[in-house]
Amino acid sequence: MVSLVFEKTFTVMQAFYIPKIGNRLYSKIQHKIDFKTKPIGALGQLEKISNQIGRVQGTDSPNLSSPTIVVFAGDHGIALDGVSAFPQEVTYQMVMNFLNEGAAINVFCHQNNIDLKVVDAGVNYDFPDNKNLINAKIAKGTKSYLKEAAMTKEQCEAAIKVGAELCSKIHDDGSNIIGFGEMGIGNTSAASLIMSKICNIPIVDCVGRGTGLDNDGLIKKIEILKKASKIHDVTTPYNILRSYGGFEMAMMCGAMLKAAQNRMIIMVDGFIATSVFLVAHGIEPEIMEYAIFCHQSDEQGHKKMLEYLQAEPLLNLGMRLGEGTGCALAYPLIKSAVNFLNEMANFDSSGVSQEQ
Amino acid sequence: MVSLVFEKTFTVMQAFYIPKIGNRLYSKIQHKIDFKTKPIGALGQLEKISNQIGRVQGTDSPNLSSPTIVVFAGDHGIALDGVSAFPQEVTYQMVMNFLNEGAAINVFCHQNNIDLKVVDAGVNYDFPDNKNLINAKIAKGTKSYLKEAAMTKEQCEAAIKVGAELCSKIHDDGSNIIGFGEMGIGNTSAASLIMSKICNIPIVDCVGRGTGLDNDGLIKKIEILKKASKIHDVTTPYNILRSYGGFEMAMMCGAMLKAAQNRMIIMVDGFIATSVFLVAHGIEPEIMEYAIFCHQSDEQGHKKMLEYLQAEPLLNLGMRLGEGTGCALAYPLIKSAVNFLNEMANFDSSGVSQEQ
Repeated sequence: MVSLVFEKTFTVMQAFYIPKIGNRLYSKIQHKIDFKTKPIGALGQLEKISNQIGRVQGTDSPNLSSPTIVVFAGDHGIALDGVSAFPQEVTYQMVMNFLNEGAAINVFCHQNNIDLKVVDAGVNYDFPDNKNLINAKIAKGTKSYLKEAAMTKEQCEAAIKVGAELCSKIHDDGSNIIGFGEMGIGNTSAASLIMSKICNIPIVDCVGRGTGLDNDGLIKKIEILKKASKIHDVTTPYNILRSYGGFEMAMMCGAMLKAAQNRMIIMVDGFIATSVFLVAHGIEPEIMEYAIFCHQSDEQGHKKMLEYLQAEPLLNLGMRLGEGTGCALAYPLIKSAVNFLNEMANFDSSGVSQEQ
Repeated sequence: MVSLVFEKTFTVMQAFYIPKIGNRLYSKIQHKIDFKTKPIGALGQLEKISNQIGRVQGTDSPNLSSPTIVVFAGDHGIALDGVSAFPQEVTYQMVMNFLNEGAAINVFCHQNNIDLKVVDAGVNYDFPDNKNLINAKIAKGTKSYLKEAAMTKEQCEAAIKVGAELCSKIHDDGSNIIGFGEMGIGNTSAASLIMSKICNIPIVDCVGRGTGLDNDGLIKKIEILKKASKIHDVTTPYNILRSYGGFEMAMMCGAMLKAAQNRMIIMVDGFIATSVFLVAHGIEPEIMEYAIFCHQSDEQGHKKMLEYLQAEPLLNLGMRLGEGTGCALAYPLIKSAVNFLNEMANFDSSGVSQEQ
């Protein structure tokens, strides 16, 4: 059970100083990579990630310990206005599915030895006590942003703070790599609005089919989000998050910022997680150095978000599931990037001739 | 030690009947996929692979057992004509590196619990006895195709046959998924020529920098391969392989065909492995149903090969290392495709509501 003690003095902008990584170790690590028994550059993107993780950890022999994925769940007022192919109950039903280990994220985390944590950030449901559910409920769902801001200032800051505390707990327990997933019927709408405001892209180019809207559903969703986009004249990342985001998203934002502050590697999932990353990045751009973009979602706006961030995703499998599944599937590749740096022989020790 | 007893009556075209997979189970497996607790299609390419593996194995509850990667090594006469950035000795040196567990493929196989086998298909070196090296040497390197066919008919057929026998042994020992890697200085040249002849693409569009040629080296390689392309007027896949291929490639071809005959899943690696697959596919097109394309290499011709085959690779990480590294890195994704089909809850049992 996470404490929700709320400090009135807490302000988002001051709370997250993120250490600069810089390029001090770049050449040393790259030299080690280049002397491995392979042609220069032959491991492509894995070499970049290997160098990045080394720089974040301040060593040319990095390691990954206790990989963790946290799935935040929350409900959205807007879901009642018909922006999703699924009813709002699916949020709590899927949380129960996570707890019963029946969802995709359970299967992939189990396969890849990733610790999975499930957090009730603000689901519209009274869960029975369950030792595997972290109860951090801010409220039973956000307000509809067609009427008012989704979160009050107090709620949004509380969510950010709780997310940060959770992340620090995981860090203190020995994890140095963390990914974030989400469950919240309606949250592709929130992500589209956040993306539109932060990247300055017309809302119509930010909206997709979410969990699988048909054409009529998509047209309705676009109309609703056009209206929503006009209602709130917000420009700062924090105010954009508060106006449109869900509790699960605000909590993820706090956790992402705190992860970087703790020098953890952040695995960024798909459309919704990347919209949250846009907010965190708007608050502290240095967070980019800590982030590995795990996959490119099939939700059409995600490609544009990644371009905005100049991010190179590891996977592009046409997935659009959320839950952190992209992180769980990409994790073995990230581990491979660390393993080759630590375990491969080099030209000196192996007796293999170098390039002529 | 693999037997090299060679039957004079063996002919490549008759030896490999590959069972047709067909679509008999397609709907049954897809129904199971669609009832998993996720939006329809949300696992993208993993769903296609999941269905494919189910059809190959004839069940909607497929499994993967004893995943194996076989690395074939062989030398190429053409290497002495200056088509590579590395000297020919690197072939045997890298084989020693594989045996000493210092190469990238060792690291990735170890990480992902894949059994690795190393085969001397025709390296220009006398290896000391080593229990981990399968000695199937056809000869100490092929001839230069600037003068004559790389392999004699007897050599090429022997290599194909030995590859098939090796694969059957692995199958009989309990494996149902196999990937192939290669090591052979000069073999991107062989792959370019095979690609050019089979796909009917001008040789200049099939040549790349291999292990890392500079501009002058690339120009020289193109000139040599243009000449080589004109010398041998060959049209059948088998004769193309015999004229330009290496022993490691012919052996891989036999192993690929036998894998499909044994209803095994074939993991196809990068540029060289895919050129071998082009030959196998030319001989028995049905092999396509058994193949999973693990990655798209950074070697420029590979993208065109994949387009020719209408293949969708799982990874695109800018790699160009060979050794089967693409297979080893993609294997966890293939395993995830099988695991979600077997382990995820469905809408009926989980109490999660379906799409409205």
